[in-house]
Amino acid sequence: MRSFFDCIPCFIRQALDSARFATPDEAVQERVLREALWAGARMDLRQTPPAMAQGIHRAIRLFTSQDDPYREAKDWSNRIALAWYPTLRTWVEDSAKPLETAVRLAIAGNVIDFGVNSRLSEADVHQSITHALSEPLEGDLEEFTAACSEVDQVLYLADNAGEIVFDRLLIEQLPAGKVTVGVRGSPVINDATLADARAAGLHEVAQIIENGSDAPGTLLDDCSEPFRDRFERADLVIAKGQGNYETLSEVDREVYFLLKAKCSVIARHIGCEQGAMVLERSHKLAAKGD
Amino acid sequence: MRSFFDCIPCFIRQALDSARFATPDEAVQERVLREALWAGARMDLRQTPPAMAQGIHRAIRLFTSQDDPYREAKDWSNRIALAWYPTLRTWVEDSAKPLETAVRLAIAGNVIDFGVNSRLSEADVHQSITHALSEPLEGDLEEFTAACSEVDQVLYLADNAGEIVFDRLLIEQLPAGKVTVGVRGSPVINDATLADARAAGLHEVAQIIENGSDAPGTLLDDCSEPFRDRFERADLVIAKGQGNYETLSEVDREVYFLLKAKCSVIARHIGCEQGAMVLERSHKLAAKGD
Repeated sequence: MRSFFDCIPCFIRQALDSARFATPDEAVQERVLREALWAGARMDLRQTPPAMAQGIHRAIRLFTSQDDPYREAKDWSNRIALAWYPTLRTWVEDSAKPLETAVRLAIAGNVIDFGVNSRLSEADVHQSITHALSEPLEGDLEEFTAACSEVDQVLYLADNAGEIVFDRLLIEQLPAGKVTVGVRGSPVINDATLADARAAGLHEVAQIIENGSDAPGTLLDDCSEPFRDRFERADLVIAKGQGNYETLSEVDREVYFLLKAKCSVIARHIGCEQGAMVLERSHKLAAKGD
Repeated sequence: MRSFFDCIPCFIRQALDSARFATPDEAVQERVLREALWAGARMDLRQTPPAMAQGIHRAIRLFTSQDDPYREAKDWSNRIALAWYPTLRTWVEDSAKPLETAVRLAIAGNVIDFGVNSRLSEADVHQSITHALSEPLEGDLEEFTAACSEVDQVLYLADNAGEIVFDRLLIEQLPAGKVTVGVRGSPVINDATLADARAAGLHEVAQIIENGSDAPGTLLDDCSEPFRDRFERADLVIAKGQGNYETLSEVDREVYFLLKAKCSVIARHIGCEQGAMVLERSHKLAAKGD
């Protein structure tokens, strides 16, 4: 998905929010803000939004001399999600439709996104969980169920720390021993890295692969050769969250996207209401989107 | 008031909204957006927000080849306000406290601000009017009442078209023949110009003076010599709206500001809730603000 005009003011607001999140030093915050404005003024709008965000968050890490400004937030998210995990697992196991329940809870976890909401609270997570089972789910669950049952190699592209614990619920419903989880190659915002996959215990139920990139999405050209190879060979790719949608919505293979459509631009691109829980295939989306 | 970091993403969003308001041509919208980003990146934050907005709206008029892109919106606002005027005048005349009622209605009219809300509807105006008499009014009305009774020369700085009809209700409560209304020197956003003052019939109840500037506020250095002279000599200055507040809050004379604190930065600067109706003196504000 290309960047739209409405993405630009949002980039600038996100840059300021993230700079404030990373440092109380107003001189550094101002430097980040001006860097984002320069980058926005020069930006090629054919780029995906995560390509722009990658540059902004590199600048934040450089100017604050912090490799991972969201480390504490990620640990906090993992702790909250792990505290919920036993309860949620019971919900899935006791459900008449365990795969659907796991899909819904995995999407509920997508609320843990400090790029969109730097003031995320435990109450937000709680609310997302409690709404997840009753809200409408956009997309074809039957098709997804069929796709999951016939696979040999699943690549599950994770999105954020904390959220990755919710992903575990769904991964446990997929054919055992067939799943590889893709995580970011290095820290960006609160996106899940290898450390978060381990914190979620995913190494116990799946292989884990780093994608070699620090973009908050999956910019294939920026990913490592082994990751790209895994992406091409997988017979089922499941991609979580807005960043993965923005970077893979036009890719030349089938991908199942699972996300909350938190921003109006993405909701319009998908053709759903803002805030909707979405499960859909890439080739359908390419036909529907603008 | 200087510009704060939070003003910057808002400038960019406003530039995009205004460009879309002025033209359906996406190439021009993009040019405006990039110009705003360049300007933001270079901006001196000691400048007031209207100084930045002045540059953005000059660019919009230049790139769209339109001297007055909000002319239709201003005519619409004047029509709506004039349709309300006889009713509102009855409310003032029948009120036990006509000056207070007029102050409240003048502030209610400050909702007509296409810079803050380019999708303003008749329902928004209606709602602002119906809430105006019951909402709390921040500030010292008694002090203002006393100040109004002893004056020889009042300078009333108008803000927006349409709103200027609401201002008429208050001007009619001030000593007859003592009031001069200041309007912008040329069009910017939906700010009131000489044409709007005449549409509101203000020439029947007051003198009108143009300030010589196209800033959406009162940048004294950018105003004409006759206007500045009038500003200095007036023994009471009443300034309507956020733009006049932003440009005059630290000026070295007493000014009464009447506004709705529509933005969070201004609310914080004044020390009130966002959305509050405010009537306060400049020297008090200088002591309270951050």
